[in-house]
Amino acid sequence: MIRVGLVLSGCGVNDGSEIHESVITMLALDRAGVAAILMAPNIDQLHVINHYTNTEMEDSRNVLVESARIARGKIRDMAEVHASDVDALIFPGGFGVTKNLCDYAMAGPDCSVNPDVKRLATDVHKAGKPIGLVCIAPAMFAHVMRSADVSVDLTIGSDKETANDIQKMGSNHINCNVEDIVIDRKNKVISTPAYMSAQCISESAEGIEKLVKAVVDMAV
Amino acid sequence: MIRVGLVLSGCGVNDGSEIHESVITMLALDRAGVAAILMAPNIDQLHVINHYTNTEMEDSRNVLVESARIARGKIRDMAEVHASDVDALIFPGGFGVTKNLCDYAMAGPDCSVNPDVKRLATDVHKAGKPIGLVCIAPAMFAHVMRSADVSVDLTIGSDKETANDIQKMGSNHINCNVEDIVIDRKNKVISTPAYMSAQCISESAEGIEKLVKAVVDMAV
Repeated sequence: MIRVGLVLSGCGVNDGSEIHESVITMLALDRAGVAAILMAPNIDQLHVINHYTNTEMEDSRNVLVESARIARGKIRDMAEVHASDVDALIFPGGFGVTKNLCDYAMAGPDCSVNPDVKRLATDVHKAGKPIGLVCIAPAMFAHVMRSADVSVDLTIGSDKETANDIQKMGSNHINCNVEDIVIDRKNKVISTPAYMSAQCISESAEGIEKLVKAVVDMAV
Repeated sequence: MIRVGLVLSGCGVNDGSEIHESVITMLALDRAGVAAILMAPNIDQLHVINHYTNTEMEDSRNVLVESARIARGKIRDMAEVHASDVDALIFPGGFGVTKNLCDYAMAGPDCSVNPDVKRLATDVHKAGKPIGLVCIAPAMFAHVMRSADVSVDLTIGSDKETANDIQKMGSNHINCNVEDIVIDRKNKVISTPAYMSAQCISESAEGIEKLVKAVVDMAV
């Protein structure tokens, strides 16, 4: 059975994983007969956002503990996961990717990436295993690939500022419709805009389902 | 455009809404061309469960604020929603239904239901509009219907204790496979076991997708 690692970054679009993107990915993997290995770093979130008022709360939450809500408890501390444990890796989006897995939301192209995220993404890529990137995740991944001196074809849809940042980090941004995917066959990297462009959940799902199929096909 | 109210009870299976069930319902509604009106009561959660360790946390969270994570911020205070605002109502599952929307998890068949949940569910039923109940939600709804002296055909799958409690509350429990639904055509009530029985997310999705189709068909 193919094992696909799913890297979460909390639970909620504004301070963690985008919940819809995470669940749609899990459902598509399960329907493809693939085992999902959920994981997240055991670190504090950058902050906690009240998603009703969209204001910061005086609260502190842990990325692994909150990610466990999406995982229904079945989740691993990312520090204990190695490239040999997975046949592919997928990063759902959400601000958690750019606030918790790296600090792109604050630092832009000069960001730094969580050591375990960087290690696992680099090792999985070096091992020739496919990587799927949803929504804003390509911004984080471009930075990881810059450290490895690799340029990858990526999409976050058509947002100019983020696309420019990806170019600055040495990768190649390709504009893409919300329901579609960009495939870099050489690097085995697949990306889709999802909620970077989606106006509704079904638009987000269409691209993610294509991404999961492409990742699984490459992982075989 | 048909408007289906979706009642959330927090964000996470052990102290709120079951996230997968909520997202799968939203996706199925959107794909059916239906508008989802998300709502939750503006009350404190019974408690907060660490979903990684499955232990209680010393923390306090609000049901509406946490539900807003699943809703991506687009959610209404249930106190302000009336039966005339929706053409149907769906309750996803999760312990939040039996801990926050009512206290069935503690009190069993002698539970009491949140006043706004009771009011809206009763009014929607009286108005002859369909109601969909996922996972454990039928236990809460049986209590609401007992107050209206109505007996409904319901399923929570095949869990004997919960099924007995539903009978005690005056409704009629019907055993049902995880991928299937029970329809009470007279009362326009549809239920499906989802994670009361499901071993994986795709099993949960199969029944929920049938439930959404049946609810939407009846709401037309």
